[in-house]
Amino acid sequence: MIFNKAAILGVGLLGASFSLAAKKHGLCRHVTGFGRNRENLELALGRGIIDAYAQDPASACGEADIILLASPAGSFVELVKRASSGFKRGAIVTDVGSVKGALVYEIENLMPAGVRFIGGHPIAGSDRSGIDFSSADLFSDALCIMTPTERSEPAALEVITEMWRSFGSRVMTMGPAEHDRIYAAVSHLPHLIAYAMVNTVSDIDRAYFSFCGQGFKDMTRIAASSPDIWTDISLMNSKNLLEMIAIFRDNLGRIEQCLKQSDPGLLKQELLKASSQRETLGQD
Amino acid sequence: MIFNKAAILGVGLLGASFSLAAKKHGLCRHVTGFGRNRENLELALGRGIIDAYAQDPASACGEADIILLASPAGSFVELVKRASSGFKRGAIVTDVGSVKGALVYEIENLMPAGVRFIGGHPIAGSDRSGIDFSSADLFSDALCIMTPTERSEPAALEVITEMWRSFGSRVMTMGPAEHDRIYAAVSHLPHLIAYAMVNTVSDIDRAYFSFCGQGFKDMTRIAASSPDIWTDISLMNSKNLLEMIAIFRDNLGRIEQCLKQSDPGLLKQELLKASSQRETLGQD
Repeated sequence: MIFNKAAILGVGLLGASFSLAAKKHGLCRHVTGFGRNRENLELALGRGIIDAYAQDPASACGEADIILLASPAGSFVELVKRASSGFKRGAIVTDVGSVKGALVYEIENLMPAGVRFIGGHPIAGSDRSGIDFSSADLFSDALCIMTPTERSEPAALEVITEMWRSFGSRVMTMGPAEHDRIYAAVSHLPHLIAYAMVNTVSDIDRAYFSFCGQGFKDMTRIAASSPDIWTDISLMNSKNLLEMIAIFRDNLGRIEQCLKQSDPGLLKQELLKASSQRETLGQD
Repeated sequence: MIFNKAAILGVGLLGASFSLAAKKHGLCRHVTGFGRNRENLELALGRGIIDAYAQDPASACGEADIILLASPAGSFVELVKRASSGFKRGAIVTDVGSVKGALVYEIENLMPAGVRFIGGHPIAGSDRSGIDFSSADLFSDALCIMTPTERSEPAALEVITEMWRSFGSRVMTMGPAEHDRIYAAVSHLPHLIAYAMVNTVSDIDRAYFSFCGQGFKDMTRIAASSPDIWTDISLMNSKNLLEMIAIFRDNLGRIEQCLKQSDPGLLKQELLKASSQRETLGQD
């Protein structure tokens, strides 16, 4: 039991799973939820995911020792502004946002005296969202990135690291900027590409969707992800994304040239580079 | 029992699964395999996937009533040229190639008198290949496209259609050109995009692969597909692919513009268009 009370601001897939994991691993005695959708909070309460909910974020945080920001990352700053008057001295605030960068510093600057913030990103989201898919084991064996800054308190980082480890996560620590560069490449760009792929088929002929096989479904699964969340993430990480879209365009352009020139040797070389790399990631 | 003997030219995932399905559903009494890799043929024989194998394609086809082309599509023409002297009068030749178009007409032109060809494409391939993943049920509930031409014999089309239905496939019939346009959009282009995505991360920083989550794995799974097979398919369908790459580039360009202009409204509109469409395909 590291904490007495927890507050979860945003009771969706990640917030609800966090609460369930906290209960399963004895992290705290009591969890209060806050969210925009009262019906969802009632449901979470009824299912025992949370123990109580509050009408506003400040009162949800009232006695909390740990406060989790688990709404879409684009809402964090406004949420913290509304909630911070309720933060207890000594509390630790953390988050599950997929984008860090400037956001971490902005949130840090909003902390009242005696309240610590540690940025975090559990790699456990998916195209599914909402409490229906929540699970106490969502973070088990998942990577969780901590993104402390120069101002982060080492003791608070240690507590949050231990918390994620107790959920079974593999914790890594890196700077917010490095995090955003990595996740632009392996998550944010792939999302944008998958959205563009689906829109491409829509533009060609919507009737073609009925002919797709498992490959198309796998390849575009993340295109079902929440447009709200991914609009936020993309804009907050746009500098990295724009740089990487250019690199992607070069790669697609090389393949295109091979098609234009009917060059099997060069084309095979491009595909082989990708397939040999992809094979190292396994088939799951 | 529609046939007495079958010949399978190319004993990989699809050829081996076809043989297993043929045995399971009593399609024929005997299956002879042919392939370039003798060790693989021995393995298929040892596992009871095929009943015999031959050293050359013509003798494999000797007494076969049905001949399946199941090697990479780029090899079909050479294979048929080498095999056709062994085709029995009255035999039906069919294939499992992912690209049809001109290839179907080329193969048709190579048929000796009294031998019928019907092009086919079961939508059952994956990033996995080889007999280790073969299954008698691979085609069960899968879509299977028949691509007859003006010269195809209706009776032969009927026989091949019934054969796939007996394996549990949902059979559809369309022209070779329409097939290639549809599958350029929902399969061939997604493969090229997935290959380009993996190469993009390689170019940015190979170390980043170790940070990827399930979304990246799903999105790039088809990039593990055989470079040989996909070089063939891409070049054989390059005209459609080049047209569709341009449409994809426009879609990605629109997203890029939203990032450059920090336009959440337009960006969300693009992502919403894709996510609402992708949701209709289900989460599996």
